[in-house]
Amino acid sequence: MKALVFHGPNAMAWEDIVRPTLGADTDAIVRVDATTICGTDLHILRGDLPAMVDGRILGHEAVGTVVETGAAVTNVRPGDRVLVSCVSACGACRYCRDGRYGQCTGGGGWILGNTIDGTQAEYVRVPFADNSTYPIPGGVSDEEMLMLADILPTAYEVGVLNGRVQPGEVVAVVGAGPIGLSAISGARLFSPSLVIAIDRTPARLDAAKQFGAEIVINNAEQDPIAAVRELTGGLGADLAIEAVGVPATFELAVDLVRPGGRVANIGVHGKPATLHLERVWDRDLTITTGLVDAYSTPTLIRLLASRHLDAHRFVTHHFGFDEFLTAYDVFSRAGETGALKVILTHDG
Amino acid sequence: MKALVFHGPNAMAWEDIVRPTLGADTDAIVRVDATTICGTDLHILRGDLPAMVDGRILGHEAVGTVVETGAAVTNVRPGDRVLVSCVSACGACRYCRDGRYGQCTGGGGWILGNTIDGTQAEYVRVPFADNSTYPIPGGVSDEEMLMLADILPTAYEVGVLNGRVQPGEVVAVVGAGPIGLSAISGARLFSPSLVIAIDRTPARLDAAKQFGAEIVINNAEQDPIAAVRELTGGLGADLAIEAVGVPATFELAVDLVRPGGRVANIGVHGKPATLHLERVWDRDLTITTGLVDAYSTPTLIRLLASRHLDAHRFVTHHFGFDEFLTAYDVFSRAGETGALKVILTHDG
Amino acid sequence: MKALVFHGPNAMAWEDIVRPTLGADTDAIVRVDATTICGTDLHILRGDLPAMVDGRILGHEAVGTVVETGAAVTNVRPGDRVLVSCVSACGACRYCRDGRYGQCTGGGGWILGNTIDGTQAEYVRVPFADNSTYPIPGGVSDEEMLMLADILPTAYEVGVLNGRVQPGEVVAVVGAGPIGLSAISGARLFSPSLVIAIDRTPARLDAAKQFGAEIVINNAEQDPIAAVRELTGGLGADLAIEAVGVPATFELAVDLVRPGGRVANIGVHGKPATLHLERVWDRDLTITTGLVDAYSTPTLIRLLASRHLDAHRFVTHHFGFDEFLTAYDVFSRAGETGALKVILTHDG
Amino acid sequence: MKALVFHGPNAMAWEDIVRPTLGADTDAIVRVDATTICGTDLHILRGDLPAMVDGRILGHEAVGTVVETGAAVTNVRPGDRVLVSCVSACGACRYCRDGRYGQCTGGGGWILGNTIDGTQAEYVRVPFADNSTYPIPGGVSDEEMLMLADILPTAYEVGVLNGRVQPGEVVAVVGAGPIGLSAISGARLFSPSLVIAIDRTPARLDAAKQFGAEIVINNAEQDPIAAVRELTGGLGADLAIEAVGVPATFELAVDLVRPGGRVANIGVHGKPATLHLERVWDRDLTITTGLVDAYSTPTLIRLLASRHLDAHRFVTHHFGFDEFLTAYDVFSRAGETGALKVILTHDG
Repeated sequence: MKALVFHGPNAMAWEDIVRPTLGADTDAIVRVDATTICGTDLHILRGDLPAMVDGRILGHEAVGTVVETGAAVTNVRPGDRVLVSCVSACGACRYCRDGRYGQCTGGGGWILGNTIDGTQAEYVRVPFADNSTYPIPGGVSDEEMLMLADILPTAYEVGVLNGRVQPGEVVAVVGAGPIGLSAISGARLFSPSLVIAIDRTPARLDAAKQFGAEIVINNAEQDPIAAVRELTGGLGADLAIEAVGVPATFELAVDLVRPGGRVANIGVHGKPATLHLERVWDRDLTITTGLVDAYSTPTLIRLLASRHLDAHRFVTHHFGFDEFLTAYDVFSRAGETGALKVILTHDG
Repeated sequence: MKALVFHGPNAMAWEDIVRPTLGADTDAIVRVDATTICGTDLHILRGDLPAMVDGRILGHEAVGTVVETGAAVTNVRPGDRVLVSCVSACGACRYCRDGRYGQCTGGGGWILGNTIDGTQAEYVRVPFADNSTYPIPGGVSDEEMLMLADILPTAYEVGVLNGRVQPGEVVAVVGAGPIGLSAISGARLFSPSLVIAIDRTPARLDAAKQFGAEIVINNAEQDPIAAVRELTGGLGADLAIEAVGVPATFELAVDLVRPGGRVANIGVHGKPATLHLERVWDRDLTITTGLVDAYSTPTLIRLLASRHLDAHRFVTHHFGFDEFLTAYDVFSRAGETGALKVILTHDG
Repeated sequence: MKALVFHGPNAMAWEDIVRPTLGADTDAIVRVDATTICGTDLHILRGDLPAMVDGRILGHEAVGTVVETGAAVTNVRPGDRVLVSCVSACGACRYCRDGRYGQCTGGGGWILGNTIDGTQAEYVRVPFADNSTYPIPGGVSDEEMLMLADILPTAYEVGVLNGRVQPGEVVAVVGAGPIGLSAISGARLFSPSLVIAIDRTPARLDAAKQFGAEIVINNAEQDPIAAVRELTGGLGADLAIEAVGVPATFELAVDLVRPGGRVANIGVHGKPATLHLERVWDRDLTITTGLVDAYSTPTLIRLLASRHLDAHRFVTHHFGFDEFLTAYDVFSRAGETGALKVILTHDG
Repeated sequence: MKALVFHGPNAMAWEDIVRPTLGADTDAIVRVDATTICGTDLHILRGDLPAMVDGRILGHEAVGTVVETGAAVTNVRPGDRVLVSCVSACGACRYCRDGRYGQCTGGGGWILGNTIDGTQAEYVRVPFADNSTYPIPGGVSDEEMLMLADILPTAYEVGVLNGRVQPGEVVAVVGAGPIGLSAISGARLFSPSLVIAIDRTPARLDAAKQFGAEIVINNAEQDPIAAVRELTGGLGADLAIEAVGVPATFELAVDLVRPGGRVANIGVHGKPATLHLERVWDRDLTITTGLVDAYSTPTLIRLLASRHLDAHRFVTHHFGFDEFLTAYDVFSRAGETGALKVILTHDG
């Protein structure tokens, strides 16, 4: 088969490689019908993840068709159209029993395209298939289902549910890239009275409006803290969701919330931030961090299938499998290309 | 009457002053039967709190006897023995309606011995008496009730309840002063499987053992992170409670917990800390800060009255009202004197 | 002034009566600008509530203008347009401290038009004004605000919040009268994947569709249990909200939910129901009952003001104060008249 | 091997039968070191459970030693001492993903000694071994671990956690048999201020005192509702746990709680009860039912291993495997024999 193989920093190729076979009884082999590229894949390409070695297949998001299952797999069978989640779950360790699949200590967690071969390929071996794949309901397209592989559950679990959005609240989302827009979509499910998006890029702020932010603040031009205070009677937001991953945006998120407020960090951080405890020790804050667990995937599927969640709008570009390098290029220059999520299929 | 009056940094005197009278209909005048000194009072004496002006009476903890009540006070009446909480609550603002009395925007919060005259006096005016005083049940002594003015609800709400201790969990308490010991007492109410106390002072670690820590770690001699990991199969504690208030102990608390763990900060901080998001962004942490609200005071009273909470053991020294300066001196040199809580009464 | 005075079963009159004056320091006198009639008022008229004595003014819902406030009232002042909630709250008893204002033991709870004079009058005395009235934000009409006096918080708190609706869930609402329709509106705030309304009246089922039910079931014609099972893969609904108040509908609600499901009873019941424990002891059910507390009123106001909640559509009829008897007649024959909420104002 | 085989109502024998072998890859074969008898086994013997057919081995509780595991089993291996839980869990169905293992739709749930051969045998086949067996920590005896097969997690999950016991609360436990005593033990972990046990048998009330009830009420002699009201200032208990399983005790439990209180039903019911909605519709009650899931087993193991839970005291009698019929007799006449839990081992 063909696959996108990592060959060290800034090197990859769509090349021939041996098609995967069943390893454990809990594995499934899935023919990939559509896959996409994550911001994390760009980090990998830069060589930031030591677990990724030369020769490994990239990617951790896919929808596809099951072609073979191990003897212990019962939830899916050959021929099923399934979502392959970015998180695999053994289903039996302490963390899986708590629904924290992302922290699985039984061999799962985020492994695809990281510690084992990934989904940017014609076929992929999916460990622990019963807890790592999800049948696609009738009426749901591959493309929209693919948005549930990573981006939507990440923003929903780590931003919206960790942040405990409640009806009537004011939610500030710092960063309006794909994850920030997903957080806006997810927050909307709980009927906040006001969603405020903050970013420095006008195009992203426009997207934020389309995704449901009533107010957008360009923090290159305007003081977001003053603006949020003014919108909230001087108090601050009930919740700030950090969707960037640099110290300044985390620190901004902490400054945006009212006493008793919450800060939900989704961003992937490479550097420490300063926590101004001298200002917030007495402000009753709750700050959360987290990795996606995909425990919410069945919920999000129900919302997709019942048309209460619009996933299509994340998709901005389509490519064929033989255009992977172009797709990476377009995705990596999102500022210019306006790319949110790019879809790769056999036929493009 | 006599009162302990603040006269600027490092200056105070037990002196004659006009006895307070009712201001608002919701006030009560309470004759102070016993009061105590808080670590915060020492900060005030150093001049750290700009709200404290020359001429103001110190102190925010008391038990006493109601002598007069405003027309709108219904929960207590003259002659009642009551606890005066460190937090006053208007009962009608947004924060009070949420039980966050410490954040009261209706004129309450921590005001006694801060923005208005305090409790280290023969009489004190208590605003919003209905939500700021608590009748003392039969069988409960003044002295043990006094521990509910600040120290026990602070540790219970901000450490134990914010930290969501559950039966069977491992709780690490960083700092074994009066607040840390209160946190140990409070955590015990939820039957953790293991409470670990961490401090640099052997006498405090001895106290921690008596208050219910099964394991004590002197972090001047031993690496607490390695020790906690070893006690928890390499994972870390379920909860770390910060009860010191300096950057290093907060940072230690964050390092002590397992993926999915909680860090509950009680400490009063004067400086920012570093939050190593590059290490914890994906660890599913929950970090909380908070000021005491005293919403748990009725619960703690029930536990005192039913003998499920031992408050006597916090009391190490007794003084008469005319010995206030000595009491402050003993309390401020807790390292040498072994003082936890010092009690001041008319007769000492 | 004029007021609608109860004179025993089936007797009432719009007659002259002495205008109320301030009793306690926590009272406010409110000039009623708009009021409405509740299903409970019909029960009262029939003589079902022994607390209602001859000579008492009816009604527990109003919006109006504050004309006078007691010395201890701080949240509202003369001239303020306010909502008068059906629940008054002392703000200082055990239940008020828990936000359970409906259970107030300090003299509040549901008292207006029940144990004291009510709101169907030109003026009303409102006890505990600080916790029982709510300023009306700019841009919100009297009429829509009036829906927050009883019907919307009742359905939201007792049906939706007690029932813990979550995104993606299936919610069955038994009864599509004003309370059932309010429950549909409230449930929608949490983005269920499917709301099913069950009633025997076609007109009400039509209304249910307009209020957001995707599926309506006429249980005079169709077996609702079989229908809900079929819609849920044989499992049952996640939540059933009972909004009628007779044994059969409660028993139906219990039968509608899946293992692990919830049943939230809003209905006012006059007779016992049968709980088939032999069928449900092992089904992990949660059944809740409740009286409105109005703790959610500020949330609902924010949703109204931000246009995330449409309250106008409940209003079907308008009358002048001098048409009270007609208004009661129209409201009591809702089946024929299509009345949901009827509004009474000075000018009609 | 030998096993206790059911032969229809009131017929069973300790007889030779073929030793079980691995069926699925997720199975384990466990040599039974100790087992016990449940009240449910007595129901089965009476013929009340249609799923139990002639020829099936009884019993759903065991500790033992793993002798063989299927290819997909990873948590335990041959030679491990393990608890066999009364609940088996596929780990991958909707209910298992929610931790509701008792409702497993993937082939698990309560199956041992019910729909498949059970544990009252020398060997037992345990399906889904990874989620259905638990290694026994060093220092924990077979006998105390065996109490975690059913009785302790049942009372803890269905009574204590469903009932949401909080420190300082008043808990009434209706029924002081093994399950009621387990509920008392479990409730104690949350430091209620008062536990009240209600039963008609003096010996059981004595046991309740030893297990931690401060107050016992013989409801053959005394009105329990009046007694509980008197102990709670007229309000009622915060929580009532039903641990009998007949209509009268359920109805009593509902009557015992205060407004805002909870009723947690553990009892196995064969008949419907009357729910007096005309009295409780406005009392803010929460009533829960449930089957054990064993999600709390790891927590209870930690409490056992750390000596915060005393399980030994449930054990009143010991028998050898060849004395099964005697053991059943002694257990079935608990009123006379004082039996709580009877232990069966190879050597007695």
